[in-house]
Amino acid sequence: MSATVLYMSMSLDGFVTGPNDGPGNGLGDGGGRLFNWLDHRLEPGPSGQVYNEALATGAVISGRRTFELAGQWGGDHHDGVPILVLTHEIPDSEPPGSARYVTDVAEAATLAKAGAGEKDVMVHGAGAAQALLRAGLLDEMEIHLVPVLLGGGRRLFDHLGPEHVELELTRTLHGPGVTHLHYLVDKVARPGPS
Amino acid sequence: MSATVLYMSMSLDGFVTGPNDGPGNGLGDGGGRLFNWLDHRLEPGPSGQVYNEALATGAVISGRRTFELAGQWGGDHHDGVPILVLTHEIPDSEPPGSARYVTDVAEAATLAKAGAGEKDVMVHGAGAAQALLRAGLLDEMEIHLVPVLLGGGRRLFDHLGPEHVELELTRTLHGPGVTHLHYLVDKVARPGPS
Repeated sequence: MSATVLYMSMSLDGFVTGPNDGPGNGLGDGGGRLFNWLDHRLEPGPSGQVYNEALATGAVISGRRTFELAGQWGGDHHDGVPILVLTHEIPDSEPPGSARYVTDVAEAATLAKAGAGEKDVMVHGAGAAQALLRAGLLDEMEIHLVPVLLGGGRRLFDHLGPEHVELELTRTLHGPGVTHLHYLVDKVARPGPS
Repeated sequence: MSATVLYMSMSLDGFVTGPNDGPGNGLGDGGGRLFNWLDHRLEPGPSGQVYNEALATGAVISGRRTFELAGQWGGDHHDGVPILVLTHEIPDSEPPGSARYVTDVAEAATLAKAGAGEKDVMVHGAGAAQALLRAGLLDEMEIHLVPVLLGGGRRLFDHLGPEHVELELTRTLHGPGVTHLHYLVDKVARPGPS
């Protein structure tokens, strides 16, 4: 069965952007540091492997913020696959290309899985990750752990509430300047604090 | 030369305790989850190896908060080695055993290195880690990365400021339910945001 998989670069201190991310500064101040490993994305080796896996997905779920900061990917994240954009309010203007606005996280997950067919669904952005985790709808995570402390920025894991989410590390790949950690997400509700 | 090494268990979302840590609840709500891997500390294998390395250190630097929440370790963290306790104000009462209060982080680092002789210095607690990182006095980190999202608690890396701290991953050991990541800390000042 296809899986819904988060792909995100994260510093050891948990940030996915530098400080002050926003229009014209999508990665935040100094946040480009997190993506140096992508220099190796077209080479044989672990980082190329992980990059190819990401681009083999059959649909994308993104938060509205990430979508806008990425220039809406020109309407085509990769291979014209469906892009489900989570937003609080549907804008008046239609999104470009294969993108579609959705307000309900469960609907986004369902539409993405249907659109991806046999393939996995890529999730991108902290907002989408958090919404899917809270809803128990994220199956796996590929965290590109970058050996740097950014000291500030937008955190990947935030606003999740006190319930524990148990994970299972199923693969570790070391690329130049990055460790790719693959986790399964245990979606069974946990008692949390005890 | 001996190194000053942080040893800390951390959830993938960056917490070293659960929420509401304080007197009588030192690990925070549900924070004991981070220490399950210590069940394997006396066994052969990666977790036993890392545990033995921690206990082979010749001095300890701790923040006052960690020191108090740990019951001051009864004045003996391990083998009677010197314990340097970072505090904003020296209390009136003497600390027990081999513990000593210090207000200056550089002095704590110097005393610890002197006390440890040929051995490494163990750093424990988020406050001490942050103070040493800010001062450029932390040499290495052994992060016990636990596959769980706690969703709340005390963060290991916080209040560090926007300068990037570059790290070098030098060892990855997989124990049952934990990944031990060893980093060298690049203490050269970095330009940070760009």
